[in-house]
Amino acid sequence: MTTSSATTETVLALLRSAPQSEEQLEQLALEAKTLPPGELVYLVETRPATESAILFRVLDKDAALAVFEALPATHQAELISGLRTQQVADIIGDLDPDDRASLLDELPASVAERLMHGLDLDERAMTTAVLGYPRHAIGRYMSPEVLPLTPGMSVREALAHVRTHAEQAETIYLLPVVDPSRVLLGVVGLRRLLLAEEEALVGDLAHAAVAAEATDDREDAARRFFAAELLAMPIVDGEQRLVGILTVDDAVAILDRENHEDSARTSGTEPLDRAYLSTPILRVVRSRIVWLLVLAISAILTVHVLEIFEDRLDQVVILALFIPLLTGTGGNTGNQAATTVTRALAVGEVRLRDLPRVVWRELRIGAVLGAVLGSLGLLVSGLVYGLAIGTVMGLTLLSICTMAAIVGGLMPLIAKKVGADPAVFSNPFISTFCDATGLIIYFTIATAVLGL
Amino acid sequence: MTTSSATTETVLALLRSAPQSEEQLEQLALEAKTLPPGELVYLVETRPATESAILFRVLDKDAALAVFEALPATHQAELISGLRTQQVADIIGDLDPDDRASLLDELPASVAERLMHGLDLDERAMTTAVLGYPRHAIGRYMSPEVLPLTPGMSVREALAHVRTHAEQAETIYLLPVVDPSRVLLGVVGLRRLLLAEEEALVGDLAHAAVAAEATDDREDAARRFFAAELLAMPIVDGEQRLVGILTVDDAVAILDRENHEDSARTSGTEPLDRAYLSTPILRVVRSRIVWLLVLAISAILTVHVLEIFEDRLDQVVILALFIPLLTGTGGNTGNQAATTVTRALAVGEVRLRDLPRVVWRELRIGAVLGAVLGSLGLLVSGLVYGLAIGTVMGLTLLSICTMAAIVGGLMPLIAKKVGADPAVFSNPFISTFCDATGLIIYFTIATAVLGL
Repeated sequence: MTTSSATTETVLALLRSAPQSEEQLEQLALEAKTLPPGELVYLVETRPATESAILFRVLDKDAALAVFEALPATHQAELISGLRTQQVADIIGDLDPDDRASLLDELPASVAERLMHGLDLDERAMTTAVLGYPRHAIGRYMSPEVLPLTPGMSVREALAHVRTHAEQAETIYLLPVVDPSRVLLGVVGLRRLLLAEEEALVGDLAHAAVAAEATDDREDAARRFFAAELLAMPIVDGEQRLVGILTVDDAVAILDRENHEDSARTSGTEPLDRAYLSTPILRVVRSRIVWLLVLAISAILTVHVLEIFEDRLDQVVILALFIPLLTGTGGNTGNQAATTVTRALAVGEVRLRDLPRVVWRELRIGAVLGAVLGSLGLLVSGLVYGLAIGTVMGLTLLSICTMAAIVGGLMPLIAKKVGADPAVFSNPFISTFCDATGLIIYFTIATAVLGL
Repeated sequence: MTTSSATTETVLALLRSAPQSEEQLEQLALEAKTLPPGELVYLVETRPATESAILFRVLDKDAALAVFEALPATHQAELISGLRTQQVADIIGDLDPDDRASLLDELPASVAERLMHGLDLDERAMTTAVLGYPRHAIGRYMSPEVLPLTPGMSVREALAHVRTHAEQAETIYLLPVVDPSRVLLGVVGLRRLLLAEEEALVGDLAHAAVAAEATDDREDAARRFFAAELLAMPIVDGEQRLVGILTVDDAVAILDRENHEDSARTSGTEPLDRAYLSTPILRVVRSRIVWLLVLAISAILTVHVLEIFEDRLDQVVILALFIPLLTGTGGNTGNQAATTVTRALAVGEVRLRDLPRVVWRELRIGAVLGAVLGSLGLLVSGLVYGLAIGTVMGLTLLSICTMAAIVGGLMPLIAKKVGADPAVFSNPFISTFCDATGLIIYFTIATAVLGL
């Protein structure tokens, strides 16, 4: 670890010195050769564009391809503009068709077209096929390089077929079985083939496939992939004809991307589509500003609520002291409930028909949480500010926690019902909503208890 | 979709009628047979304990095992207490050693011991081996059922060996190669073996393995697994001797669990270890109350800050109106930064040495966000409440956004530096911190501008 980190530092120092002479570049190439691929990706990904391009150009072909494949498509597109045509053609030719499609998508149409013409016919056909599906469709992520068997093959024939054609296949561990018009009949695992009698028929060994249609949503398809504990999943068209195969690494990448998106949106920001450290400042601002504005504008609601109660505040200015504590607690309680229910929805433990059960559960959970916090609030603020204020705090905490838990539990279900991403009613949104509602509860209780 | 949902309703109705007679139970069994495994899991997982037990008991052996395997260990342990001894023994015997270890962990020691005695010697030995590793170690998740080759084997011998012993192996698609004392020398993919000459030696085909030590942290090991795009990863002991193998489904389950934990903690709650709808209310409360108390107690800080400025509030009560809006905006900005940096840390795009770059970036990002929001704040509140208040709002939003972005960017790095989970400095914690700091900024600016 220490040595590798020391070399990363060496390469970093060389890069920063803006190497230009043959000799300097050769030294950089030599040092870079000793770095593990992960370190190279880190450097290319996080250094400014000029340094990335210099480093990338001194890599040998295999290392360059490995690094290139690890970059997000937007970053790939940028990098390409700084490379010589031959190097670009080599890299594009070596990418998998699905990765190539993502990259071409990010390039200006004229550049993409020129690159497509540089490919051989087969590669071009496969790339076009993948590019034909909508952006979030699973067809975008499949590999068209699939190796189908037919049910009439014997195990011996099938294994020979696999041996001869393995080069063209993305995976040989799960083999789709198709009829003469390429309609998917089932799948057979290589394990099963290997253990079977040589004269057995593929058709007798195959079993029903867990497959997806190429136009299916990528997240749904990836979740089905993992639920069925697959190593690969055949992808079919609308007529159930085999068009490609999805492998584990693709499914993992999709779920990772979805998790990233969800956790970003839950915190009120859009995910960045390239490395944080090399994303231009204004692009990061763009990923945050819309949410921030929407939330700030919603928060004007709280100003209006407080305006209504301005004379109470004027009478008992002490009431203002507890505003951040109360709104904070409401927001936290709401977010806890929303996070739990969003997760339960995602894994299918909660469904829309469970809405009444969710509300009833959160009502009780919120009441218990509110009773604990309320008792504490009554005690502490009662001791410091007197019984009347203590009573207001106790009752308010009890009510706010109950309300917030119900709101937090409901929001993801409502989002699902209207067909929106549950993350749209994100945590900050729930907080803002609970802020306004909580303030109304607070001043209503204060007015009643203090007789204002 | 509609038919399957209709049948779920039928089974649900039967369950709710508390079936007891032979005939009723037989009808339930018949209806349950037509449900896909996912629906059975949903019902067993989310119905009250008595209904779950009834449904589970009418399932045939394969369906019962499939459902049982899909349940979290805590839920498995509960279910077991309601079953007949023979059914329990059957299920325990059929589980994978790693799943069995998780379950035994959840059972009372006496029950676990009795169950262990019911296993045959081999199964018992493997379970004990897995149970020997600490709770978060990758050894807990590996399968000891591994099929090693030796470097001197020819491809023909190796394939014959695989065919004969495949039954005892968790996977045959990646085969570890070991020396006579079981030290891991490398791995060879089944694909490679199949395509090689029959007389080639395994030792010449093998390549260096990406492996993990059994005591390694599960999350680190799983991340390495996916970074290297593996189908399986050999697990070794401290002397590099092969002890087991980790497969894709285990690695996926670990990462899913970690994602769940992180997203829960980020929202200030502990993850539930069983289905939300069937978790007792008080257990849900327990998962939330500690965080809520800690946050509420930290929020007392905001009360103290406001107390310091109480006379300013008394003079200009209008200042109170903007408190929730300002604290909310600060919290949101901080959370956005924290989420982005936490993600970048997790995927290795940001490292500890990048701390100055992160601070410098967030300072500029926060300033731009603050400038946009501040201008808007100046305009809107200036129009409604006059120029002085407008100026206070503009300057405060600018300062709060800048401060919050820096704090949000720093917190995950500080957590990492002190060796804590970045999720510990969770979003609500950052919000609370930004609330208190933001209020100080607000009243300091107000005092200066309004000349209080």
